[in-house]
Amino acid sequence: MGLFSTPAKVYKPAAEVDLGPDSGEHYISPNVKAPRVAGFLVKMLAWVLEIPILGWIVLSVLKRDNLIYKLVSDAEIPEPPLFTGTHTWQAIPEQQVSVTEPGLSPAERVQAAVACIPADLEPPAAALADGPSFRRWTVRDFHRAYSSGQTTPVMVARRFLAAVEECSGPDLNMGLFISCNPGDVLRQADDSTRRYQQGAPLSAMDGVLVAVKDEIDCLPYPTTGGTRWLGSARRCVADAACVAQLRACGAVMAGKANMHELGAGTSGINPHHGSTRNPYNVGRVSGGSSGGSAAAVCAGLCPVALGADGGGSVRMPAALCGVVGFKPTAGRLSNSGLLPLNWTVGMPGILAATVEDTLIAYAAIADQSKPSPLQPELNLPMLTCTRSMPNIRLAKYAKWFDDSSEDIRSLCGKALQMLRTHYGWESVDVTVPEIEEMRLAHYVTMGSECTASLAKYLDNMDRSEIGWDVRIALSAYGSFSSRDYLNSQRLRCRQMYFHEKIFETADAIVTPMTGVTAYALQDDALSTGELDYINGAALVRYSIAGNFLGLPAITVPVGYDRGGLPVGLQFIGRPWSEAMLLHLAYAMQEACGKEHRKKPKVHYDLLRNQ
Amino acid sequence: MGLFSTPAKVYKPAAEVDLGPDSGEHYISPNVKAPRVAGFLVKMLAWVLEIPILGWIVLSVLKRDNLIYKLVSDAEIPEPPLFTGTHTWQAIPEQQVSVTEPGLSPAERVQAAVACIPADLEPPAAALADGPSFRRWTVRDFHRAYSSGQTTPVMVARRFLAAVEECSGPDLNMGLFISCNPGDVLRQADDSTRRYQQGAPLSAMDGVLVAVKDEIDCLPYPTTGGTRWLGSARRCVADAACVAQLRACGAVMAGKANMHELGAGTSGINPHHGSTRNPYNVGRVSGGSSGGSAAAVCAGLCPVALGADGGGSVRMPAALCGVVGFKPTAGRLSNSGLLPLNWTVGMPGILAATVEDTLIAYAAIADQSKPSPLQPELNLPMLTCTRSMPNIRLAKYAKWFDDSSEDIRSLCGKALQMLRTHYGWESVDVTVPEIEEMRLAHYVTMGSECTASLAKYLDNMDRSEIGWDVRIALSAYGSFSSRDYLNSQRLRCRQMYFHEKIFETADAIVTPMTGVTAYALQDDALSTGELDYINGAALVRYSIAGNFLGLPAITVPVGYDRGGLPVGLQFIGRPWSEAMLLHLAYAMQEACGKEHRKKPKVHYDLLRNQ
Repeated sequence: MGLFSTPAKVYKPAAEVDLGPDSGEHYISPNVKAPRVAGFLVKMLAWVLEIPILGWIVLSVLKRDNLIYKLVSDAEIPEPPLFTGTHTWQAIPEQQVSVTEPGLSPAERVQAAVACIPADLEPPAAALADGPSFRRWTVRDFHRAYSSGQTTPVMVARRFLAAVEECSGPDLNMGLFISCNPGDVLRQADDSTRRYQQGAPLSAMDGVLVAVKDEIDCLPYPTTGGTRWLGSARRCVADAACVAQLRACGAVMAGKANMHELGAGTSGINPHHGSTRNPYNVGRVSGGSSGGSAAAVCAGLCPVALGADGGGSVRMPAALCGVVGFKPTAGRLSNSGLLPLNWTVGMPGILAATVEDTLIAYAAIADQSKPSPLQPELNLPMLTCTRSMPNIRLAKYAKWFDDSSEDIRSLCGKALQMLRTHYGWESVDVTVPEIEEMRLAHYVTMGSECTASLAKYLDNMDRSEIGWDVRIALSAYGSFSSRDYLNSQRLRCRQMYFHEKIFETADAIVTPMTGVTAYALQDDALSTGELDYINGAALVRYSIAGNFLGLPAITVPVGYDRGGLPVGLQFIGRPWSEAMLLHLAYAMQEACGKEHRKKPKVHYDLLRNQ
Repeated sequence: MGLFSTPAKVYKPAAEVDLGPDSGEHYISPNVKAPRVAGFLVKMLAWVLEIPILGWIVLSVLKRDNLIYKLVSDAEIPEPPLFTGTHTWQAIPEQQVSVTEPGLSPAERVQAAVACIPADLEPPAAALADGPSFRRWTVRDFHRAYSSGQTTPVMVARRFLAAVEECSGPDLNMGLFISCNPGDVLRQADDSTRRYQQGAPLSAMDGVLVAVKDEIDCLPYPTTGGTRWLGSARRCVADAACVAQLRACGAVMAGKANMHELGAGTSGINPHHGSTRNPYNVGRVSGGSSGGSAAAVCAGLCPVALGADGGGSVRMPAALCGVVGFKPTAGRLSNSGLLPLNWTVGMPGILAATVEDTLIAYAAIADQSKPSPLQPELNLPMLTCTRSMPNIRLAKYAKWFDDSSEDIRSLCGKALQMLRTHYGWESVDVTVPEIEEMRLAHYVTMGSECTASLAKYLDNMDRSEIGWDVRIALSAYGSFSSRDYLNSQRLRCRQMYFHEKIFETADAIVTPMTGVTAYALQDDALSTGELDYINGAALVRYSIAGNFLGLPAITVPVGYDRGGLPVGLQFIGRPWSEAMLLHLAYAMQEACGKEHRKKPKVHYDLLRNQ
């Protein structure tokens, strides 16, 4: 590496880093040295990077310019590596929670979750109107409509299928689903309808449509991971654990939601299955990689969707599409049946229109198979008592918080102010050091693990099956040394220490969810994909701790920018503090009230006027 | 890698591998494709490998020829990575153990250990005679001699210092110590002498000499790691945890024992500090990397020494020098104060003349600071009751067991037979699959971690400070990709599964400790080091599971080959089964009786004739 080396960063021991608000720690806003490229230029770059020695040289220059050598590869790091973001459990008293019994079935857990939710005060009739009174149908709306006989799961499934057909057509071309099998959807809906007719629905989720990111195994579909080859290279032989649990609650698997190919990008642009468009503005991206899941919930096609979050992939598109995105603590949900795109940063996540529905889905899919004391039992937040959560302290790192677009900065600042006024919660100024360093370490980690994990497929295939932008990403992913990987794990160790220290003084860290709102989906990117690392870095700016450190994190919509595009706020919690995070998100949702209820341009009403 | 790729191995899922004796699993005896090189050829190879592109090509050829691409880099491995060999504790009932209270001091633990040891039946007068009645002085011999006033720690220390001077001189040139400060040794001995005079020795180890491998921090010495530069590049500011615990027992730190430079070899040849010669035959190697520690115990200079074991580095030289070598479960001893040559395979270990002394030292340095339930309390084996250990089952993999020199095979086979006849213990035939695969994965892991850990020194130094053979090793170590590293961790996951399964049917795995006995120390290697990967691979053949999987393992001498060189047998135990292993080693020692008592050519008597 001598040729490309730069003066390396010498990190001081983590314990000597000042985490106070006036810390001298330098905040590095990612100064990405890579212009946006799309179309022919993407192809050319992909070719160059695949030429043995030349590719290595060009990658080396790119890595040097993007500070990977300086901050990771060549850096002097005092800490040993920490290889995973998994946490053993230390009992911390939790406030306003309903402690579930061990061994409950998914349906019983859903019931326990519903008991934690305040009764609807707004009449359903108010829903779906445009303007401030707009709201999306929730799990409980569907359950009530099915139970009362107002409609049936089959009738809703038919509407859903018609909507999918319409928005997949050439006019809208929304790119929400990779596959959706009408026969399979109707069969499930039919079973559910029969259960309601017999007065024996399995749970409040019975008959509720759930879109599943195409990174998660769900029969009868292949799992493509957004590619056009992986579905046949790797057979899907069983439902993923989270899908099986939702089925046990009676939910109707609505099809495989679109995603950025291999999760190797954050825009949701996909040359194979169509790019997912943002329902608030079809000229904008949905975000990714769980873009299809986010847009489907946004467009009213399902109240809940499953995603997977390896680098913000659930939370970013949720924020860009104005819905809730939730990634619990690493290990809280089973990874069984997810494509192994990495081993130490990714896990399933939930996208939903409301915090209440997020809670219901979370209760359904929580993994209780792990032995205590390594993992605590599942505690559910009593949202009925959120108002009486006392003494909440929210950590804010001003330089980081403010490193977002003007509108985001202002909306998120106002939202935080609302929490202070409505609930009397405190905010605490802190410094979260080495954020850009963590982003790079996470990138090295995810890329290295993706390379090793997918090698059995990638080594033996025709590269032309892969999208151009992803070929470039894979070239970068495959270029890391074991030293790069180990140094990244040493930075993980530092960050774990920093975050543990911050959580000694605060209950959660609060940030915007993204640095930009949904940006333009440009025509030249549709067939080749695009490389836009500047917008990409702005999207992931606040995501990484959730993945690299396995911390739970949730995003909740707090308004719209001047272009009418949604803005999300994020809470990052200490390990196993899911209940606390759901309280915070619910409080935020309630405090924002009707301000964040803007109806998307593309939206379907599956319940009314049946 | 396309240029150098070979058909890669496709591993079947670990659960489908047959571990029975008639398994069709192929046993690969390491077919090392690298001739022994020493002298000018070593220098030339070191230069070539350090030339940017040419070096990469030559290394690629070497890695291909040694099956690294086929078995690791390009292999198709179904399992996810397992990053460490640490084990959570599952209570397994232990036989014939003395359960120590939590919170005992090191000296109290030594006392508890002494209570587990049978009284000496042989009169000390029998010791040190040549022929079958030879035995080395033990901790209890020294303690008795000090307590009775027969001699004092100061008198013994003076004898020790004279012996070190003699055997370091040009005639013998044994290369046992890197540094030994007479003033410091005498000061400690003086303190100990005073304690005995006051009738208040700290423990049975008070005044007992302990040599410390120069990889372990021990004031007032620098820690060189066998180099000539690391001692000044990294300051030693405190005793390592294990050294501090021995001091708390009154032991006298006798100096820093020689080692293979950076632990990057197994011969004990060291161009900077002199090569450690084998006291049984000064024309032979001591083994390494803890060669100085093993040879010092062998030569009677101390009953106990500390080593460090990252790839058999305690056990191999112990076997070659005819002493006991013990590496407990990963985490049982603190790594604090060891050079960070790696993070996931190395730890301290004990070298001692007898199993009883091994137990005493083990009790002294056991780390009880970790919180339960991740680690069990320290249980000590009641060696008084070893004969009544019932139903012991020893797993043996015949193809592996027999892949050693004729004499080793025969002696180890006889030893195992003795255990059957003397104690009625059973042996169980099994297959331990993928042993060569594990050796390569361990090599990639250790090399990668060494590179990342030492980079802060190596990046900025003059390579000419480093020995030629180690420069070559460092070139190989630095050549691994993150994919190599991750695939190695996936092989760790497989091996952990295999070993857990084997331990369901057996209490320990029994193997020879090395495939060869001490081989020739050739003159052409003295100043340049040598590369002898054929003998190297034979030395580490049985070592790796102890390190890669963090399993406890012990070697005990069982006789001498036709050249009069010691042969060791090894027991590998399940996690936290130290007490069981010490029972097994003690039983073996007693069963072999006087057969393994051959006096080394170089030996000092520190107690008699004072």
